[in-house]
Amino acid sequence: MAEPDIETTLRLQPRFDAAGLIAAVAQDAETGEVLMLAWMNAEALRLTLETRQATYWSRSRGKLWRKGEESGHRQEVVELRVDCDQDAVLLRVRQTGAACHTGARSCFYRIATSGGALTLAE
Amino acid sequence: MAEPDIETTLRLQPRFDAAGLIAAVAQDAETGEVLMLAWMNAEALRLTLETRQATYWSRSRGKLWRKGEESGHRQEVVELRVDCDQDAVLLRVRQTGAACHTGARSCFYRIATSGGALTLAE
Repeated sequence: MAEPDIETTLRLQPRFDAAGLIAAVAQDAETGEVLMLAWMNAEALRLTLETRQATYWSRSRGKLWRKGEESGHRQEVVELRVDCDQDAVLLRVRQTGAACHTGARSCFYRIATSGGALTLAE
Repeated sequence: MAEPDIETTLRLQPRFDAAGLIAAVAQDAETGEVLMLAWMNAEALRLTLETRQATYWSRSRGKLWRKGEESGHRQEVVELRVDCDQDAVLLRVRQTGAACHTGARSCFYRIATSGGALTLAE
């Protein structure tokens, strides 16, 4: 349970993890579809808020990554929210093209069953 | 970039982090509202798929936590999806009561501005 203050303060006080990262969920601002989950360090969060273009920290490549910088599949940030204990953020975005590098609109394109099988959504 | 196989396989092969956890986003199945972000270990994921009641791993308490076990604010899982590289899951849920322990319907009740101020949503 977080300190009460972190839940009520009206100052952004992101709580980065031991690796200096915070989880970021991107949601389509119009349809409500959850598009992806990625990570931000302090610089990515700052750039996202200042430029309104979603910028993440790529854990695999170890560098800042402005979404769409190569693919053109940018995310314009309509709204950025923080959760109760300020260790996750939610971006409501206008997504250009596919959010997922596989070409799927959302990274969450497979549904799991209790038996451990996956089925393709839609 | 993940192995191609992990993106196309129709077997659930969750990639837990060094702490044995995977990020789980809960979304209201009817309204599309993103309710919370929490964590699951292998046992929480298994129980969630088997019982269709969202079960997480509480990092602060160091134990399994069936959502609503104390508050009654349960989450019935309508659908569980996994993302492209299988290191995050999305739960579409029927939420009883508030998802957030603060009493807010969603944990994401504050909007951030570029200046670092937060405003209450709605």
